Amino acid sequence: MPHTLGELARALGLQVHGDPDLTITGAAEPAAAGPEELALASTPAYAEALARGRARAAMLWDGADWRALGLAGALCPARPRFAMAGLTAALDPGPGFAPGRHPSAVVDPRAEIGPDVSIGPLAVIEAGARIGAGAVIGPQCYVGADAAVGPGALLREGVRIAARVRIGARVVAQPGCVVGGDGFSFVTPSEAGVEQARAALSGEVAPAPAQSWERIHSLGAVSVGDDVEIGANSCIDRGTIRDTVIGDGTKLDNLVQIGHNVVVGRDCLFAGQVGVAGSTRIGDHVVLGGQVGVADNLQVGDNAVIAAGSKVLSNVPAGRVMLGYPATRLDAQVDSYKALRRLPRLFRDVAALKKAVSKADGSD
Amino acid sequence: MPHTLGELARALGLQVHGDPDLTITGAAEPAAAGPEELALASTPAYAEALARGRARAAMLWDGADWRALGLAGALCPARPRFAMAGLTAALDPGPGFAPGRHPSAVVDPRAEIGPDVSIGPLAVIEAGARIGAGAVIGPQCYVGADAAVGPGALLREGVRIAARVRIGARVVAQPGCVVGGDGFSFVTPSEAGVEQARAALSGEVAPAPAQSWERIHSLGAVSVGDDVEIGANSCIDRGTIRDTVIGDGTKLDNLVQIGHNVVVGRDCLFAGQVGVAGSTRIGDHVVLGGQVGVADNLQVGDNAVIAAGSKVLSNVPAGRVMLGYPATRLDAQVDSYKALRRLPRLFRDVAALKKAVSKADGSD
Amino acid sequence: MPHTLGELARALGLQVHGDPDLTITGAAEPAAAGPEELALASTPAYAEALARGRARAAMLWDGADWRALGLAGALCPARPRFAMAGLTAALDPGPGFAPGRHPSAVVDPRAEIGPDVSIGPLAVIEAGARIGAGAVIGPQCYVGADAAVGPGALLREGVRIAARVRIGARVVAQPGCVVGGDGFSFVTPSEAGVEQARAALSGEVAPAPAQSWERIHSLGAVSVGDDVEIGANSCIDRGTIRDTVIGDGTKLDNLVQIGHNVVVGRDCLFAGQVGVAGSTRIGDHVVLGGQVGVADNLQVGDNAVIAAGSKVLSNVPAGRVMLGYPATRLDAQVDSYKALRRLPRLFRDVAALKKAVSKADGSD
Repeated sequence: MPHTLGELARALGLQVHGDPDLTITGAAEPAAAGPEELALASTPAYAEALARGRARAAMLWDGADWRALGLAGALCPARPRFAMAGLTAALDPGPGFAPGRHPSAVVDPRAEIGPDVSIGPLAVIEAGARIGAGAVIGPQCYVGADAAVGPGALLREGVRIAARVRIGARVVAQPGCVVGGDGFSFVTPSEAGVEQARAALSGEVAPAPAQSWERIHSLGAVSVGDDVEIGANSCIDRGTIRDTVIGDGTKLDNLVQIGHNVVVGRDCLFAGQVGVAGSTRIGDHVVLGGQVGVADNLQVGDNAVIAAGSKVLSNVPAGRVMLGYPATRLDAQVDSYKALRRLPRLFRDVAALKKAVSKADGSD
Repeated sequence: MPHTLGELARALGLQVHGDPDLTITGAAEPAAAGPEELALASTPAYAEALARGRARAAMLWDGADWRALGLAGALCPARPRFAMAGLTAALDPGPGFAPGRHPSAVVDPRAEIGPDVSIGPLAVIEAGARIGAGAVIGPQCYVGADAAVGPGALLREGVRIAARVRIGARVVAQPGCVVGGDGFSFVTPSEAGVEQARAALSGEVAPAPAQSWERIHSLGAVSVGDDVEIGANSCIDRGTIRDTVIGDGTKLDNLVQIGHNVVVGRDCLFAGQVGVAGSTRIGDHVVLGGQVGVADNLQVGDNAVIAAGSKVLSNVPAGRVMLGYPATRLDAQVDSYKALRRLPRLFRDVAALKKAVSKADGSD
Repeated sequence: MPHTLGELARALGLQVHGDPDLTITGAAEPAAAGPEELALASTPAYAEALARGRARAAMLWDGADWRALGLAGALCPARPRFAMAGLTAALDPGPGFAPGRHPSAVVDPRAEIGPDVSIGPLAVIEAGARIGAGAVIGPQCYVGADAAVGPGALLREGVRIAARVRIGARVVAQPGCVVGGDGFSFVTPSEAGVEQARAALSGEVAPAPAQSWERIHSLGAVSVGDDVEIGANSCIDRGTIRDTVIGDGTKLDNLVQIGHNVVVGRDCLFAGQVGVAGSTRIGDHVVLGGQVGVADNLQVGDNAVIAAGSKVLSNVPAGRVMLGYPATRLDAQVDSYKALRRLPRLFRDVAALKKAVSKADGSD
């Protein structure tokens, strides 16, 4: 995978500054870069460390004076962060899977395997499954009966795609993720304490005869759109009657939980350990920070941004930025936090006022 | 699996209204239902959409006027949500596993396999393991040495049951869950900073000589009762000296963490991403909402309900409904939240009072 | 594995009290202990239950009067909790894996396997992987191309070590953990709404043209130090340009998420469901309680202790004890919580003051 600076520039649609024939074997931070590594220094502050490394070429910022930094060549993109996408794609060594179908894989003869599909060691593909052209089914993966994996998808090691689930084109599924576990839906013969508590918002549940939970089975599956990413050990549950849906281009980080019947729009970004409870609908281009929770049966509008750690307990309008537990508008929440910090002083002020007023009354 | 409306009614113990011979091949939402699908419309609001679909039969509510809705037949249960349990059980196509023992499974000859057990491709069953009658060990599952899986249990793809763990009858274990990881228990030769911090509730830890952590091994196992459900990628750790225990009928959602020595009672419901720390005891019929955390060495009483996102840092009496971080009685917490919202106004009021009082004093 | 009390005492470096020849086959809680089990009673309160069990020997506290408790022998360590480490190590029956290389394992001939390595059934070891002497690669584990596993490491069932990841000596990896998933790093061609929201801290995002996310690939790997523990189903992501790093002796509990580029120091303790977002640096001897979240690009100093459930949104100095969301000094946070509880009374006081002052003014 050795490149030249000129080849990289062409791949990224950028102009090359200086010597286009410099060999580039990888990328590195400025201080750690070797003579054939492209140093990444997107701001003048990062560029200071170039002197401590041995890079001869770097990716800098628009208008950077690369010669003054002692370099023999440079790329100077207008948005360095975006240029990282193309650059890292060009230099990615990949997951290290051998191509072809490993003889230890257990592939049911009734599965339909498209052209140029790779299937890793000890993978299982069940009857009726359909694998699209060029897809990579990693080692120890599972693709259930009548499931469909789109063309160009990459399932990393140990991914579980359950029966009847549909996975779109070019989806990347990280190790250990599970698509198509059963929804978590249980019901008692009569109303349970938790139903009373939700209805009454009271602090106690009335004593009631003990009941056991009956399982509501999941008849739906999961439908994952094109260009979706699913993080390591994340879970997306089946729907009860219809499919749980993840829209095109949406990216889920690790250990994310998507409950039954949830519908997520397109191009959303859910950070690590997010949880979305059953039957909630999330719009397009929504960003959920790390460890955000969204309660069940809610609606979150397009373009909403929910800050890390927030717990959303009510509907969120489009374009709203939210923070806190329970989540409220970010600016109002910040005001509340500030007020909370100043509370001890307020208590002292009120105590002093009471004294002053009672003295003025002469009632003491 | 085609049914008639009459057969479904009998299976659910319900009276059939209209034509019992209508063919039912599945269930659907009212607007999406085809002519052989049972539409699910548990309230008049949902029933409005029946006109947009093609259903000839529906599951409605007690007393519904099914003829006026243009249907040829109907079920009208007193508690439609409960009827869903029986209905979905009758229509569930299952996980798509082939019956029998797949030749690629690695089953130690010293394991005891009961009658009518299915073992999926590339599953591993170790020496001394005992699998009860009719259990289904899914593809790529692991059942460790001397572990026991009860009759009728269903282990979905990739479940890990560690050595010496006991799993009850009819347990459902979702893909990727782990029962019997080692407890997280470490100790330093002398008292560590975290122990000081817990004792003193102060804001700083005194500097102390650096120490490394020694592992306390887990000699206990895990004992999971009958009719328990364990969610996808959830984890239940071994106990230190005795078993960690999950009571009969308790249901755990995905990505739930149960620490070492925890004892959970019967018929509890823990939603997604709940965490219960080491040595805590949870009573019977307790409901923990999504992302709830319960700290270590606590007691949570029977029938308690902890709202989603709450962090429980102290004992909870039986029947209590809790919310917040730290969790307190739901009604008190709601009052606190309301007060917090009104704080900015309170600051303004107090400022005005100070002015008024200082003017009245003439001391300005 | 039968021992005598004297052998155990020698293994733990403790003096034996009473009969050193008592047979010890295991450990138990005082009330449950059989005649050949060592009862564990580290305080007089626990020792009361000895009378209900049948133990003839116990591990007590320094200076305990073991004869008065009716025992025939005892160990009386100065720090019983620390003695548990040695005791449980001596009595641990282990994960139940058979030694040697199971014939069903798929080991690439280009992998380097050290002496005395065990490889379980259906494990996969790819080309160029290096397994150190005495390591145990459990059933159904995956070790990717050019990955390295240190001597004496134990990978429990179903562990996933991705390509090029380095795992130190004596690391214990619990079932289902994933080391080396790709980092969660995406970028839009122009600035996205979430970038605006972070910059402005406002409550709304301005409408903007819809954009899709481009993937920033992970060129780095993960470097895990010696004596690290990684919990069940936990995830550690690759770095973008350099490795994500976990320092020697650090212990991670179950379902922990470590983002790309994170650097964790040595001898840290992260409890269950902790999440550390991308590029954050954590010092040495840091303790993060259960479900703690640390936002991206932060610094947490040495010896800091973050209480369970806290969400860290800003840098934390060394030795600081933090609590809350957003996390602040524990003592200040406790004051805020107390003030919040007393708020309803404060509102009443201010209302009364307003009345009193307005009356005094005669303006009513």
